[in-house]
Amino acid sequence: MTDPVLDFWFDFASTYSYLAAARVRPLAAAASVRVRFRPFLLRPIFQAQGWDTSPFNLYEAKGRYMWRDMERLAAGLNLPFRRPDPFPQNSVLPARVALVGLAQGWGEDFSVAVYTAQFVEDGRIDKPHTLAEILSFMNVDAPAALEAAQSDEIKLRLRSEVEAAQMLGVFGAPSFTTADGELFWGNDRLEQALAWAKRIG
Amino acid sequence: MTDPVLDFWFDFASTYSYLAAARVRPLAAAASVRVRFRPFLLRPIFQAQGWDTSPFNLYEAKGRYMWRDMERLAAGLNLPFRRPDPFPQNSVLPARVALVGLAQGWGEDFSVAVYTAQFVEDGRIDKPHTLAEILSFMNVDAPAALEAAQSDEIKLRLRSEVEAAQMLGVFGAPSFTTADGELFWGNDRLEQALAWAKRIG
Repeated sequence: MTDPVLDFWFDFASTYSYLAAARVRPLAAAASVRVRFRPFLLRPIFQAQGWDTSPFNLYEAKGRYMWRDMERLAAGLNLPFRRPDPFPQNSVLPARVALVGLAQGWGEDFSVAVYTAQFVEDGRIDKPHTLAEILSFMNVDAPAALEAAQSDEIKLRLRSEVEAAQMLGVFGAPSFTTADGELFWGNDRLEQALAWAKRIG
Repeated sequence: MTDPVLDFWFDFASTYSYLAAARVRPLAAAASVRVRFRPFLLRPIFQAQGWDTSPFNLYEAKGRYMWRDMERLAAGLNLPFRRPDPFPQNSVLPARVALVGLAQGWGEDFSVAVYTAQFVEDGRIDKPHTLAEILSFMNVDAPAALEAAQSDEIKLRLRSEVEAAQMLGVFGAPSFTTADGELFWGNDRLEQALAWAKRIG
């Protein structure tokens, strides 16, 4: 018997995805659920709703709340957190690199490191040098990975992942989807999503 | 020493407020926190953001998700739930009646009963007869309560409650606020809000 699967959809610019990325692997291991990291882009989904930036920028009270909520939640999880500038950052390049890495076995560690670069070290995740530093630290060939990330294959792959997310009803990040088509939205729903995956697994 | 206080802000049209209204009293009692029921209106807050209806109607994927999420959460809490029609319903009248009742000692039970009427019995909470039925069942003088609800005093009171909510940064429902000005948004944050109130109490 194989472990049940839970898909973890995340955008590298998403604040709450940082919390989920930090939590998902230990929680999934404890629940004997296999998590698949699926980086995607919120931007085209937001644009289809008529939003040209994050809703946290568009709606001031909501944005103010989110930063405070993140502070409190990160503190409760003993995770460092600082507000990045600018926000949101363009997440296309790290998403493409992550897709390269997920096929080569280093994508999950890379993803967690990108969140740390952005939400702890105030790094620019849209800049190749930030990603190259992460890759080198992980002993991955950075120039090769960055070049592969710009291949047509990977560009197309990311585009089809965004479409797959939309087909599943994803409208925010992080989201979790199960083999039977259930969608769970938000870091808050991680435990519930794992329990669901386990039950149907 | 008096118990610490947590303000519970809710809109009678809000789906997640139904879950919070069902949960807040037993959880607060267990935490020795005194909860103040504060009915308000989301509509003027949404209108200030340019929305003419619920975001769950404006954003289709988000709306579809919310109804499924509510089904799952209600099932997990052993609470009956059915999707009301129409949605959202105008919540001005029940909010005014609740303000009358909160000054007379029956406002909390009335509030919980309004949610049941709407989300279990498919009742129209914008209709006086629905509210009159609830009041009569509670042995409250329904005509007197409904008349008091239309007094200038109560109308003004509800308007100033909406302003108070906005001043506290409230942008959705349910929300919880503590004496030191912390805001917690969503049924998901009830436990965290109670813990915060207790800690500062």
